Amino acid sequence: MDFVFSDNTAPLKPSAIREIFKSLTDPEVISFAAGNPSPESFPVADMNRFADAIFDECPSTALQYGITEGYTPLREAVRIRAGSRFGVCKDNDTVIITSGGQQGIDLTAKVFCNKGDTVICEEPTFIGALNAFRAHGCITAGVPMDEDGINTDALEFAIKTAVNPKLIYLIPTFQNPTGRTMSAEKRERCLQLAKKYGLMILEDDPYGELRFSGSEIPPIKSMDAEGRVVYCSSFSKILSSGMRVGYVICDGKAASKISVCKQVNDVHTNLFFQMVCHKFLTEFDLDSHIKKIRELYRRKSALMLAQLDEKLPRSVRYTRPDGGLFIWADLPEELDSDAIIKELVRRKLAVVPGDTFICDNGSHLNGFRMNYSTPSDEQIIKGVGILANVIKERSL
Amino acid sequence: MDFVFSDNTAPLKPSAIREIFKSLTDPEVISFAAGNPSPESFPVADMNRFADAIFDECPSTALQYGITEGYTPLREAVRIRAGSRFGVCKDNDTVIITSGGQQGIDLTAKVFCNKGDTVICEEPTFIGALNAFRAHGCITAGVPMDEDGINTDALEFAIKTAVNPKLIYLIPTFQNPTGRTMSAEKRERCLQLAKKYGLMILEDDPYGELRFSGSEIPPIKSMDAEGRVVYCSSFSKILSSGMRVGYVICDGKAASKISVCKQVNDVHTNLFFQMVCHKFLTEFDLDSHIKKIRELYRRKSALMLAQLDEKLPRSVRYTRPDGGLFIWADLPEELDSDAIIKELVRRKLAVVPGDTFICDNGSHLNGFRMNYSTPSDEQIIKGVGILANVIKERSL
Repeated sequence: MDFVFSDNTAPLKPSAIREIFKSLTDPEVISFAAGNPSPESFPVADMNRFADAIFDECPSTALQYGITEGYTPLREAVRIRAGSRFGVCKDNDTVIITSGGQQGIDLTAKVFCNKGDTVICEEPTFIGALNAFRAHGCITAGVPMDEDGINTDALEFAIKTAVNPKLIYLIPTFQNPTGRTMSAEKRERCLQLAKKYGLMILEDDPYGELRFSGSEIPPIKSMDAEGRVVYCSSFSKILSSGMRVGYVICDGKAASKISVCKQVNDVHTNLFFQMVCHKFLTEFDLDSHIKKIRELYRRKSALMLAQLDEKLPRSVRYTRPDGGLFIWADLPEELDSDAIIKELVRRKLAVVPGDTFICDNGSHLNGFRMNYSTPSDEQIIKGVGILANVIKERSL
Repeated sequence: MDFVFSDNTAPLKPSAIREIFKSLTDPEVISFAAGNPSPESFPVADMNRFADAIFDECPSTALQYGITEGYTPLREAVRIRAGSRFGVCKDNDTVIITSGGQQGIDLTAKVFCNKGDTVICEEPTFIGALNAFRAHGCITAGVPMDEDGINTDALEFAIKTAVNPKLIYLIPTFQNPTGRTMSAEKRERCLQLAKKYGLMILEDDPYGELRFSGSEIPPIKSMDAEGRVVYCSSFSKILSSGMRVGYVICDGKAASKISVCKQVNDVHTNLFFQMVCHKFLTEFDLDSHIKKIRELYRRKSALMLAQLDEKLPRSVRYTRPDGGLFIWADLPEELDSDAIIKELVRRKLAVVPGDTFICDNGSHLNGFRMNYSTPSDEQIIKGVGILANVIKERSL
């Protein structure tokens, strides 16, 4: 039979990245396309130990229904860490445990946006967020970025010209897909603009713990005295992405509404792994563990950048991230990214096309995203070699 | 600051049951209010063994991002079991693993319903589904039930008079909250009506495995040749509710759309516990395990019914379920359920008020839901005693 889908979801397409992910079953393909943490970063032995302890100490709690807002001791541990480490948990704020950072984004859009409202985003930006906004019937409006983050003049213009703007979606630190980090001044300015025009900010910070150079810049949420910022993060990039445990930190009144929506979404997040995360926050040296991940990514990003510096023509520009998982490359006008990416796939190198990350008003982005956390060193060297060869051949 | 929430979510209230659940921290309160499986039903030792095996065999897969549709071997195992056991997986059907049965309900509504569409439901029905529909801006229209399930004449009338009816939501087997089971004839009739009026059926079957008397009645999905039924179920009542692993079985075209919406919702379900479920389906005698749960619930329901038969006045009518978790009681007109329930709470017995389960067009239901899977035998005896005392005092 022919199905009639809802107006909001009928136009939705699967995320190109998830689809690429599915097609990467060919073991010969080198993937710079993932957004995955390195498997080397998973603390397997400790997680096994903590899991055994939970089976031993409190299996009936861990396997039973729990509270929608999350496992209370984990919420408290997150509050303490996020507060002391990033200054993001104020007195009026509440922690809600979510099924990965993605759920925090989806629920925030659901709670604040009506069909036809506009969500203003950095462009390019995270496809998972764009599709979440679209699934709620929102329009996504892209604002260009400078090296130090969103162009705030363009942001104000976008706010002024948007239809029912409600939410500004930002990934200020090690942005996906560009790897760029927004300066402290611009963070302040974004908050001022949100206040001036009565918008909420959704601050997505999945990579904030992964800084391997430069100095820390406080999250926008830490500058927010009135509850205008909803802060989303997760344990995906520091413990395990497959377990799907994240959190939202926001004003208690907004948190209550997010919680009601989470209740009808999945009742609560996997309780066993909430308890695992709680043990990692309270019975484990998480900072030392994160330090090791940073060292790993510092090394891998340096390797990829050194390879790019050595092998790519100067006409190709790319970002030099201070942390996170991604490098973004812009091709010169005379090179067509679509044709290049197609040829890369033929030679078994996968990258993510720039147009994956554009908003509803976006034009073509002649670039692509590369990831250095998942491929092995050998794959990084070989992959950049393939990339350089294709670009050089096409540049002739 | 004052928040302006979206039109769909602004009127949402937390589920009364989840709120009751939160307040049940007083250890003296006897709860007949939960919808929880008995902790005795959790196969803790085997789960621990399977978890250790996963940490040992394939930790990098289990802790990494996975595919949105679910862990492929689990999807295949569910297809085989659901097909052979319930006849619900046809050639055109696809299995999608969801974060509990609740997510299947939420995503089905999202995919098929526009704001202002009507979802037609049994009345009373599961509050988690009602609130999911409301969160998508749907109207819920209730249809009264007979002892053998929904009144199909009233169903046809409701379809004819509803504004934009799109979906019929049914829990045919051991319905929540009534414990009633729909006859095979009525299941056929529901499917005919859906076909006649061009509606989809969302068949929610979380309790189907928990039959302890009477004979099996095939799910509506097993009678569906054209893909008109979306079937939701979960492992919550046979393995663990806290792990949040469920599944949707439906036509592949609908499944693709549900999958896209799941992608923006939580990317995928906790992969580790998907792998645990896979081991339970392939390396474990699940049928023997379920047989034990059925015996447990047969005994507990019989105990509660015997206590009710012995202690309650004849004017109180209640259902005698053949499976599942719930008994529904209707009070005679001269007794006010609100006042009775309030007094029960004062005497430390919690039940769920009937009005929790009514649709948008619903009137007052002078009854309540009781659960026998969670309280101990002593609590069942003591709790029914409290109930009988309060009712007798008020009946004087």
